[in-house]
Amino acid sequence: MVVLKAASPPVPSVNKINNGTIKPLITPSPSSFINLDQGDPEVFRSYWRKKSEECTVVINGGDLMSYLSDTSNVCWFMLPELREAIQRLHRVVGNASAGMDKHIVVGTGSTQLFQAALFALSPSNSPIPINVVAASPYYSEYKDEVEILRSGLYRWGGDAREYDKNEAYIEVVTAPNNPCGSMRRGVANCEGEGKVIHDLAYYWPQYTPITQQYDHDLMLFTFSKCTGHAGSRIGWAIVKDIEVARKMTRFIQMSSIGVSKESQTRVAKIIGMICDSYEKIGSSLDSDELFFEYSKRKMRERWEKLRAVVDKSNLLSLAKYPKTYCTFTNHTSESYPAFAWMKCKGGIEDCESFMRNLKVFVRGGKRFGVDQKYARVSLLSRDDMFNEFLTRISNITSDRKYNLN
Amino acid sequence: MVVLKAASPPVPSVNKINNGTIKPLITPSPSSFINLDQGDPEVFRSYWRKKSEECTVVINGGDLMSYLSDTSNVCWFMLPELREAIQRLHRVVGNASAGMDKHIVVGTGSTQLFQAALFALSPSNSPIPINVVAASPYYSEYKDEVEILRSGLYRWGGDAREYDKNEAYIEVVTAPNNPCGSMRRGVANCEGEGKVIHDLAYYWPQYTPITQQYDHDLMLFTFSKCTGHAGSRIGWAIVKDIEVARKMTRFIQMSSIGVSKESQTRVAKIIGMICDSYEKIGSSLDSDELFFEYSKRKMRERWEKLRAVVDKSNLLSLAKYPKTYCTFTNHTSESYPAFAWMKCKGGIEDCESFMRNLKVFVRGGKRFGVDQKYARVSLLSRDDMFNEFLTRISNITSDRKYNLN
Repeated sequence: MVVLKAASPPVPSVNKINNGTIKPLITPSPSSFINLDQGDPEVFRSYWRKKSEECTVVINGGDLMSYLSDTSNVCWFMLPELREAIQRLHRVVGNASAGMDKHIVVGTGSTQLFQAALFALSPSNSPIPINVVAASPYYSEYKDEVEILRSGLYRWGGDAREYDKNEAYIEVVTAPNNPCGSMRRGVANCEGEGKVIHDLAYYWPQYTPITQQYDHDLMLFTFSKCTGHAGSRIGWAIVKDIEVARKMTRFIQMSSIGVSKESQTRVAKIIGMICDSYEKIGSSLDSDELFFEYSKRKMRERWEKLRAVVDKSNLLSLAKYPKTYCTFTNHTSESYPAFAWMKCKGGIEDCESFMRNLKVFVRGGKRFGVDQKYARVSLLSRDDMFNEFLTRISNITSDRKYNLN
Repeated sequence: MVVLKAASPPVPSVNKINNGTIKPLITPSPSSFINLDQGDPEVFRSYWRKKSEECTVVINGGDLMSYLSDTSNVCWFMLPELREAIQRLHRVVGNASAGMDKHIVVGTGSTQLFQAALFALSPSNSPIPINVVAASPYYSEYKDEVEILRSGLYRWGGDAREYDKNEAYIEVVTAPNNPCGSMRRGVANCEGEGKVIHDLAYYWPQYTPITQQYDHDLMLFTFSKCTGHAGSRIGWAIVKDIEVARKMTRFIQMSSIGVSKESQTRVAKIIGMICDSYEKIGSSLDSDELFFEYSKRKMRERWEKLRAVVDKSNLLSLAKYPKTYCTFTNHTSESYPAFAWMKCKGGIEDCESFMRNLKVFVRGGKRFGVDQKYARVSLLSRDDMFNEFLTRISNITSDRKYNLN
């Protein structure tokens, strides 16, 4: 048994408040708690501070007042300029096919769209709910989002690899996967009829090489993870079947009568700036002016630092990702996922508790349907938090013993 | 049987598109369809165009990026300036108690908050869903919003007046009521334990005299109907019980991980402008500079014009509202509801179809749980639409016969 001796002062009162979220600390000190549980994307902020004025939106009192945006479109609450910006972004990055033959549905983050997709893909006339499955480790929130209202349309069906019912199902494929960063395909293998939701929240060049332009039936994206603008709550679905797009739109209408227009207009502006900058390549632009070059460098630097520390550790390990050619950057590279999927070794049975002893909040493997030796660590935090995390895990790689109680 | 003769050219191709919404026409002509079905609040736009620059918000590229807003608050995704603005607005108007002893939860419109409230008030451990009831005529969307996911937590229980089960229930009280404009109290009268959601979307001075400061357990408001900024999708709940507020916040987290910050910051700014202007009363401000004076005048004028036409009609009638003293304006007045609740007479059995023959889309009584002799007509449309509507119903008050097929 490894024994941890607290090198720092006694645990201060935890910054955990009523609702279970953790108050971020202004400056992390050796005695502060660090929250790497949630994936609040703070890592790209210095880029946006530098580009702040280029993406400024000005909204007057009389602007954007109607519920309606474009009643000629299936998704009648989506601003046309947002639809065009999304199509342009996918053309520039080459990660997904979003041409005129596809239907785009905007949502209040991809979370709302996930639920809209469940509603749209569930048979409306079945006496039993359809099973929703995902291969473990799966995103920790899917299960709760499926189960929260005890819907009679769909229910949580567990690990897709173990699914063997002769019943219709919906499989959620997260690629790259949250938490483990690997690229994924559908795995459910049974006699029932399957429909697939592709959650491509992290299929952007800073996290993983773009290897192909996806063209699945139903693909979800979120602006939160694309650029780090999580506060805007904008996600979108790219949908082949107009009837599915119509049902998703209907769900969002019943759920919130549309999506903030202020956010839509701002996201369109920011996407425009990103795309414009790529069209200026070859001119005087420094590569750090280009969002995906900047953000990929940030993620690569973090991963290199993290691997250097973990490689020296006899208590922690990380998965390896293959080197792949990226059609967007025209370079071969590893993946640099938004989360580190950490495995504890050396007799440590519970990685989340182990990290909590280091005053680091992470999300344990159980939440993702796997062993608690694993935990997900956000690599999207601020630099000072990330560096303090590295310092703490560096300290435990020595030969000292750790008390894990 | 009344017979309608089309006074105008043959019906043009209906501007109804795929998703069932109606394309608004640029300028209504005698042959155009007019959509008074939806309640898109266009009536106050000229005020906001005049005040456009006073409420301008400027959002830079690096602003408002986090999921989190105020982790010391139960509703951790609500911007503190929005909470303060909402509290200030209720202090100025005097329509609801929203002091420091209350919890405010922001939502993507009050539609999302209604569902959050159902989730929060439903027993989590009951084997049968709780019944959700509302006195007819009730808001047409409640039933669909309750039933859409076939929740095992709650189900639609129908008309509150007819509810006589010895089971727990949730009653939705809409005051003033949508569609009929009357002030409402809970009416469910049975042995089961009842909880009440007060939907006060229209409890603002332009629609009805403010007679008291409400202090119910759970009150819903929406900015869409307060000022007409429907595109922002901002609503709020005022909640007494912290556990209810916590569960509502949890629902919104699972449903959309919070609410657009761009909208929150803009709504805070607009509310600030309204409240500032009331603090300047007595100075040089003309009463049309004050939002609620302007908007009440607009609603009163529309009601006066509408009543003048309907009073001459032998086919249509409208409810009367009592004159009441308004503690906000310090005057006695009638109500000027956002919708006219029209009743057809003279042998007309289906008011919606009757209006459709006049090329006016309205929402028939059946959707509100009552007879189809009734229909709801939005009075929040643009001036030209409203005036065209008046022209059309004026024409049917003559002695001519109308073909109702």
